[in-house]
Amino acid sequence: MAKIAVFPGSFDPITLGHVNIVKRAAPLFDKIIVAIGTNTSKKYYFTFEQRKQWIEEIFKDYSNVETSAYQGLTVNFTKSVGANYLLRGVRNAADFDYEKTIAQLNKAMDAELETIIIISEPELSHISSTIVREILINGGDVSKFVPSQIEVVKQ
Amino acid sequence: MAKIAVFPGSFDPITLGHVNIVKRAAPLFDKIIVAIGTNTSKKYYFTFEQRKQWIEEIFKDYSNVETSAYQGLTVNFTKSVGANYLLRGVRNAADFDYEKTIAQLNKAMDAELETIIIISEPELSHISSTIVREILINGGDVSKFVPSQIEVVKQ
Amino acid sequence: MAKIAVFPGSFDPITLGHVNIVKRAAPLFDKIIVAIGTNTSKKYYFTFEQRKQWIEEIFKDYSNVETSAYQGLTVNFTKSVGANYLLRGVRNAADFDYEKTIAQLNKAMDAELETIIIISEPELSHISSTIVREILINGGDVSKFVPSQIEVVKQ
Amino acid sequence: MAKIAVFPGSFDPITLGHVNIVKRAAPLFDKIIVAIGTNTSKKYYFTFEQRKQWIEEIFKDYSNVETSAYQGLTVNFTKSVGANYLLRGVRNAADFDYEKTIAQLNKAMDAELETIIIISEPELSHISSTIVREILINGGDVSKFVPSQIEVVKQ
Amino acid sequence: MAKIAVFPGSFDPITLGHVNIVKRAAPLFDKIIVAIGTNTSKKYYFTFEQRKQWIEEIFKDYSNVETSAYQGLTVNFTKSVGANYLLRGVRNAADFDYEKTIAQLNKAMDAELETIIIISEPELSHISSTIVREILINGGDVSKFVPSQIEVVKQ
Amino acid sequence: MAKIAVFPGSFDPITLGHVNIVKRAAPLFDKIIVAIGTNTSKKYYFTFEQRKQWIEEIFKDYSNVETSAYQGLTVNFTKSVGANYLLRGVRNAADFDYEKTIAQLNKAMDAELETIIIISEPELSHISSTIVREILINGGDVSKFVPSQIEVVKQ
Repeated sequence: MAKIAVFPGSFDPITLGHVNIVKRAAPLFDKIIVAIGTNTSKKYYFTFEQRKQWIEEIFKDYSNVETSAYQGLTVNFTKSVGANYLLRGVRNAADFDYEKTIAQLNKAMDAELETIIIISEPELSHISSTIVREILINGGDVSKFVPSQIEVVKQ
Repeated sequence: MAKIAVFPGSFDPITLGHVNIVKRAAPLFDKIIVAIGTNTSKKYYFTFEQRKQWIEEIFKDYSNVETSAYQGLTVNFTKSVGANYLLRGVRNAADFDYEKTIAQLNKAMDAELETIIIISEPELSHISSTIVREILINGGDVSKFVPSQIEVVKQ
Repeated sequence: MAKIAVFPGSFDPITLGHVNIVKRAAPLFDKIIVAIGTNTSKKYYFTFEQRKQWIEEIFKDYSNVETSAYQGLTVNFTKSVGANYLLRGVRNAADFDYEKTIAQLNKAMDAELETIIIISEPELSHISSTIVREILINGGDVSKFVPSQIEVVKQ
Repeated sequence: MAKIAVFPGSFDPITLGHVNIVKRAAPLFDKIIVAIGTNTSKKYYFTFEQRKQWIEEIFKDYSNVETSAYQGLTVNFTKSVGANYLLRGVRNAADFDYEKTIAQLNKAMDAELETIIIISEPELSHISSTIVREILINGGDVSKFVPSQIEVVKQ
Repeated sequence: MAKIAVFPGSFDPITLGHVNIVKRAAPLFDKIIVAIGTNTSKKYYFTFEQRKQWIEEIFKDYSNVETSAYQGLTVNFTKSVGANYLLRGVRNAADFDYEKTIAQLNKAMDAELETIIIISEPELSHISSTIVREILINGGDVSKFVPSQIEVVKQ
Repeated sequence: MAKIAVFPGSFDPITLGHVNIVKRAAPLFDKIIVAIGTNTSKKYYFTFEQRKQWIEEIFKDYSNVETSAYQGLTVNFTKSVGANYLLRGVRNAADFDYEKTIAQLNKAMDAELETIIIISEPELSHISSTIVREILINGGDVSKFVPSQIEVVKQ
């Protein structure tokens, strides 16, 4: 059976932390789907099109990394694309307790779905989309936190 | 002196996790009051009447479990009902740090109030009302996470 | 059914932290048994007789607190004395993860045994028997960390 | 080079926890700037003028403690006032993981900026501005959680 | 390139927790090597032969699970067998901080070595070889904690 | 009053993690004493003379960093050298809970002694003396984990 992993998130925007997890996990799976979760009641900083375009650009040389989008429960999306794995990056102990809860919940809803955790690179473990947006709102420089493709597009 | 515990929460809705804590604690106290905290500035998913009805139905065979409601500070409610104990379920380390802060705060406001902690059953430790609501909003099946009484009433 | 709790430990020596947990829990149970676990392959700083005498002296005015001793598994001791509760004090998040593991283990061996956790008083949460022994070995003053009865007996 | 620390926060209102950290750190630095971060899109419970007046009153006898205000990124403010240190109080493990992320982020934006952590006094570690506001909203007594100057001013 | 993972441990004895991690990870890798680390200065409860025999017996129907042994650094063993992955089970936040340190260390010694984490099943998260040995020493029943093969062999 | 900090440890051997903390803290204090704690009942990997020589060599260009040694309680040593600060590096949440306990203990024994925490650099947070010794015992290369001075001396 093909080993297909979903890497879910808002990616508003995708960060160097996200990219690092996907690149490290890419050799392990036949396919990784970077899945942009969208929620109609939530406000995003970047448009869906923009977020999607960046992700596609960033992984264009990774033949087994695809970009997709979904609404609703992650377990429904993973089933619809035939994925048996959820891929998650974990940065610290507080993150872990959260991911454990979500993994356990997802398994309760789909017993076949396995969560695979990769530990964030220490030098990237301070990066989050929330922090990137906060810096952008305050006019700061985010070039150390996001892929160079995002810089290019922004100008 | 009667041993009266308050088990406070929004119970929007009550979950199998909540029910398990109350049932395990019931033999220890003369009375447990499941106390629905309400906050006029907060939006709830289920009406107060619905949440209360479910709790009463679930514990109807537990002679020492009562349902009540309160507004404002928990310490004021515990005093008003003559309770000397707060009952809390804790799922993981992150939960614990939070509950420790709240317990210490409550004791600062009422030196007589003792917080009693019961550890969540591992197979229930992924369940929270927040997650149940999230699944409901997305049309998922919550029957593994809430008492059967909630299923019945919903239909 | 009588509510009997076992408070297990080495108590080498008993500290103000231990005493605080037992005194706060005393009103909740019909009986609390402070149970000195002994392990023939382990070296203790104080003799068993000394440790037991201190505990008895400290709780002599608490009519529902008894002192006992046991070897082997805690679950066997709790069964032998008809106890349905284990009482534990927890100081911080790291402690909690440890106690959760032990509580889950004990429940796997005896489904009737419930672990009740009380959060250490913040101003006592740095105290442990290990630290008291370390100070004693180095000739320091432990009077802030142990009950006054221990001072008296030592002279 | 002068040792200048910034102690950033909303201080809505300043608590005994904040005051304790600043007073303990005061001898270590040539100057500590208590810096009220303001965010035009955020609602505060107390006016900026009120929050500032309290802080000034509380530290009026501390010749090396100043009060200031800033908008935007903390690293921009620290640079503008020539500060090389950020001062933070940490209460528990969950706090630590958060502060580590922020410190690492700030260092990525300003390699010269060093975060100095002081551990909250245990008997103050349950206090936060959020909790003080919650108690005020519910008509409770916050005199154990805030400096006496706040009581005086409120009347 | 073949996806080969090493699952290192003392396995003194292997527990249901270990077995669960390997079985869940088996479909993800081309080969998993259950690697018994041995340390001549360390005392084991079960002989190496016994521990190895149990592991082989338990995984005999898993064509891609092998058993091996090693001394010294894990990174040297992984290199010698051409493995690019370390497989680890993590039970709670405290475990995670430990595994993060080890994973970071291993990557510093071998940049190609990726650690893959699977979260322990909640109902198995109290099991450890240490606890199993403790129960055995005290004459307790470990059948809920170890694979049935271990029972059979012991008689 | 002079700002004197003690940085206590076994330093068996000193690592890049230790060195980083001292160098980052050096501008904050008038003097930092790297204090080698020795315990006659404990076995060390390197001789006291060797450990001391490395520390002196490493900090020889830091005019306000001294090396010293002590036996017994840290609080007695800090008093004897007129230090009012303990300097500690903290790597993760688990470390923090431990350091909080020790800091609180030390303050109970000497109310004037303040513990100052600096967060380990993320890319050094996997390094510990224990791990360095483990690698040395197994014939591994520790050059990424210890100062270059240690390499030189070893040859």
